[in-house]
Amino acid sequence: MTAAARDALAEQMQTIGLAARDAAGVLASAPADQRTAALRAAAEAVRDRTAEILAANDRDVAAARSRGVAANLVDRLELTAPRIEGIVRGLLDIAEIPDPVGRVTERWRRPNGLAFERVRTPLGVVGIIYESRPNVTADAGGLCLRSGNAAILRGGSESFHSSRAIVAGLHEGIVAAGLPATVVQIVPTTDRAAVGEMLRMAGLIDVIVPRGGKSLIERVQAESRVPVFAHLDGNNHVYVHAAADPVMARAVLLNSKMRRTSVCGAAETLLIDRAATAMLPDLLAALAAAGCSIRGDVETRALFPAAVPAVETDWDTEFLDAIIAVRVVDGIEEAIAHVGLHGSHHTDAIVTADAVVAERFLREVDSAIVLWNASTQFADGGEFGFGAEIGISTGRLHARGPVGAEQLTTFKYVVRGDGQIRP
Amino acid sequence: MTAAARDALAEQMQTIGLAARDAAGVLASAPADQRTAALRAAAEAVRDRTAEILAANDRDVAAARSRGVAANLVDRLELTAPRIEGIVRGLLDIAEIPDPVGRVTERWRRPNGLAFERVRTPLGVVGIIYESRPNVTADAGGLCLRSGNAAILRGGSESFHSSRAIVAGLHEGIVAAGLPATVVQIVPTTDRAAVGEMLRMAGLIDVIVPRGGKSLIERVQAESRVPVFAHLDGNNHVYVHAAADPVMARAVLLNSKMRRTSVCGAAETLLIDRAATAMLPDLLAALAAAGCSIRGDVETRALFPAAVPAVETDWDTEFLDAIIAVRVVDGIEEAIAHVGLHGSHHTDAIVTADAVVAERFLREVDSAIVLWNASTQFADGGEFGFGAEIGISTGRLHARGPVGAEQLTTFKYVVRGDGQIRP
Repeated sequence: MTAAARDALAEQMQTIGLAARDAAGVLASAPADQRTAALRAAAEAVRDRTAEILAANDRDVAAARSRGVAANLVDRLELTAPRIEGIVRGLLDIAEIPDPVGRVTERWRRPNGLAFERVRTPLGVVGIIYESRPNVTADAGGLCLRSGNAAILRGGSESFHSSRAIVAGLHEGIVAAGLPATVVQIVPTTDRAAVGEMLRMAGLIDVIVPRGGKSLIERVQAESRVPVFAHLDGNNHVYVHAAADPVMARAVLLNSKMRRTSVCGAAETLLIDRAATAMLPDLLAALAAAGCSIRGDVETRALFPAAVPAVETDWDTEFLDAIIAVRVVDGIEEAIAHVGLHGSHHTDAIVTADAVVAERFLREVDSAIVLWNASTQFADGGEFGFGAEIGISTGRLHARGPVGAEQLTTFKYVVRGDGQIRP
Repeated sequence: MTAAARDALAEQMQTIGLAARDAAGVLASAPADQRTAALRAAAEAVRDRTAEILAANDRDVAAARSRGVAANLVDRLELTAPRIEGIVRGLLDIAEIPDPVGRVTERWRRPNGLAFERVRTPLGVVGIIYESRPNVTADAGGLCLRSGNAAILRGGSESFHSSRAIVAGLHEGIVAAGLPATVVQIVPTTDRAAVGEMLRMAGLIDVIVPRGGKSLIERVQAESRVPVFAHLDGNNHVYVHAAADPVMARAVLLNSKMRRTSVCGAAETLLIDRAATAMLPDLLAALAAAGCSIRGDVETRALFPAAVPAVETDWDTEFLDAIIAVRVVDGIEEAIAHVGLHGSHHTDAIVTADAVVAERFLREVDSAIVLWNASTQFADGGEFGFGAEIGISTGRLHARGPVGAEQLTTFKYVVRGDGQIRP
């Protein structure tokens, strides 16, 4: 890339950033109804443009196939009429999420008569950097609109035409509702240097949300001068305590691991109390019958010989596949220590009938989501009732767990007095 | 600095960081009462060590004087018995703040029966980088203890001995309450490279709070790989609307500007409606009588000839001194636009008897704190009822406005079920 090309790109990105800031100002004072109307109109416009979006998607898919992109990635990229209908329904669902902007979350009065409120306000400008799934375009744009934020979308080059066609639909709805099209912008170049520019746009972008593989997220976290909501791993545990009901343990374990193996809420390791190993063969047989490979420690293999030996790195691995690592532990203390050492602070579950043990697990396991007697696959904004999510954060600041419309807001303090001065 | 010295420092800082992470683990499950006991015992220990702390401070003050440090900085550095008593009372006050850890801030149930809670948890490890005021040592250490966080303190080299003597007192109390001394650590070197090390300790430090002058904060924000709670400027406005009561306007303006001019909540610019300029000579005479210099636009000077001409940069300047910039505006719209263009999103106030206009100002001014008919000098954690603050954040993520014990926490989702699996 020549210096001149780099300068031109930087200038183009600055223009996008400044337009986003202006749009954020307009959005921040746009009433909730107007943003709801924009979401509904955008959904209809995307539906009306189904043929156009499918044609754009055909170009992306053909290009990906001709470059020899792996079949599972082509599948992520490919849109069909039902998938577009899914995008439309997603936007309509976002339109129904209670508007977070302006909501008073705390209210108190001081002895001097000053009345304080803590009020939700938009974050400002959200940058979303994602890979091949074109539906992220609509989800992310829609959630930003719901939360009063301007969005700068940077989709993968594979989904370039599809994403632009979807954004054209969003724009139609946004403009019809009387808002500027610039509230949702898509970076109009496949140049990877554009990502680097976004990561340097502190002051113009308030937060970056990367959606994609580990290498993308690692790059964003390493380079970004803008705060990042990201999660790297969902190395999640199911801990079956001595007092677990065997039937419940089997159902929760099977669902946590096998419902979908590629999602970040999938379980990767089973920890089981030595006192509960009588149920281990049945648990593992159920997993194996569902197609799961078992990697066990010595005790596990003694009880379930079909298991292959687990190696040390298995405890730290997010398989995202039909593989589970299994370790026998001494009890709650060892289980919590294992999760603390090997987990990724994402989602961990205990199965037990003992409330005291359960409460200790819930308190001491330092993860974004901790569950008692429920599947780790509930780690999802929709299942939380957030309506939609832009991702799940394993960071500790601002957003943790599913990032929905509410987590895309900040707040301000509103103070009302009648002439108070400070002594 | 030699490569060997740099390696040794990096290793020393890693050791501190790892000890802090361990301590954070202990703290996270330490009950509130134990942390309260530690705070009270620490306060008593600091009081008992008054003579020792004063002696350590004498060394710092003498060294500063011999290096020709400016008198106002020596004043910030200097401790006296009453100032130490102030530190003691500060710790006792922090001990009384309601413990934020474990507080359930939201609770809901889903149709499938899953019960969700959002529960406050400590952030983990907080790094505080500050300059000459040794009292920050106790305030920051105390607030971290209250919020269940381990603290790594890096004080200014000027206050090195004073801060260490205060930390010795904190440690006595912490250990007496059965907690490890490492919950509050102070970097045992005046080497400036230690700051650089802290800023690279992502994974060991969860958030950095810089307290000090602009150059420190700019350095931290530019270099840090760890998230930062910082504020650069408090370029705050008082807007006197046409419908303001003149007596209230004078009192609020005078207090906002002159109560203390060196605090970040001090007002720096007066905006006044053209329709209210009849009261301007009286307002400015009151400021001038209190020792304030007036820098006015053309209209202001026509009404108050003692004012000197304001230059364009005055609107963007945080004077932190007895100086005010004054501009006549057309009304609420122009006032809000001026604040948006020149303000620093810290604290801005409107004085008016018109509730509709006031609510518009409160809604549309995008600052951490917006006030109606009250002094900007209420921008202070104590005045908010937070008990104590570690700073005031003008950032938009996580913490905004006064950063008290509650803002030093994050949260997790606790989900209780009876065997739910995801369809």
